[in-house]
Amino acid sequence: MTVDVPSSHLDILHSTGLAFVATLHHRDSGVRPQVSPTWFHWDESAGHLLISLTDRRQKYRNLRREPAVAVCLTDPANPYRYIELRGSVVAIDEDHGHRLIDRLASTYVGVSTFDHRPGDGQRLIVRIAPDSLRCFG
Amino acid sequence: MTVDVPSSHLDILHSTGLAFVATLHHRDSGVRPQVSPTWFHWDESAGHLLISLTDRRQKYRNLRREPAVAVCLTDPANPYRYIELRGSVVAIDEDHGHRLIDRLASTYVGVSTFDHRPGDGQRLIVRIAPDSLRCFG
Repeated sequence: MTVDVPSSHLDILHSTGLAFVATLHHRDSGVRPQVSPTWFHWDESAGHLLISLTDRRQKYRNLRREPAVAVCLTDPANPYRYIELRGSVVAIDEDHGHRLIDRLASTYVGVSTFDHRPGDGQRLIVRIAPDSLRCFG
Repeated sequence: MTVDVPSSHLDILHSTGLAFVATLHHRDSGVRPQVSPTWFHWDESAGHLLISLTDRRQKYRNLRREPAVAVCLTDPANPYRYIELRGSVVAIDEDHGHRLIDRLASTYVGVSTFDHRPGDGQRLIVRIAPDSLRCFG
């Protein structure tokens, strides 16, 4: 399943806005939401949102357990223009050669190589398939 | 319980940055996260984050059922500077005389009265008590 992205907001998917990614954090006392901003890449041919994580992150553990996500993608020039996307993680793969994270670093901050440190853990590609998408602003 | 806000990031709580508020959406098929941006007011004396909702919103129904929230508060001038806050809704009260929503409209967009329409439903104040807070950037 792919979702249609209205042409009015397609630019946001190709911008350097941040993705605010909400996940579910299961704890002994119950589940609670987690949200944090991250870089993203829109894979237009697949209709998937790609984010980069390492296996040391709480968000990674959350997504391994529960693939449901919600994401806000904002226009970096106008935070009142944004996309709300809901979907599921359909794959978590190793980021071989750090291709995704280096590409994101280039797009977002103009450096050719992301400063990955060994203690950061294994660099991964999280592939999110949207099942709904709403545009605002 | 109140949390300490480092002076380095206190300005964000008094800025016109948006709050990305994540909640839990219970459905027949299970729980999933929801996230959307909203205006906020930091009640410094109580150490509470206040947001404005109406009773017609999905986020309101989510919070009535499950008070756990996670919030990202970003510096409007630098999205890489932000606060991650987790906590619970401790009260949902009627916004008598639309005091909160009008105050937010004044702070954020410089109008004295928010354009509330009857079909919007009852205007409410959601009071969030943080139990943890982390600063980035």
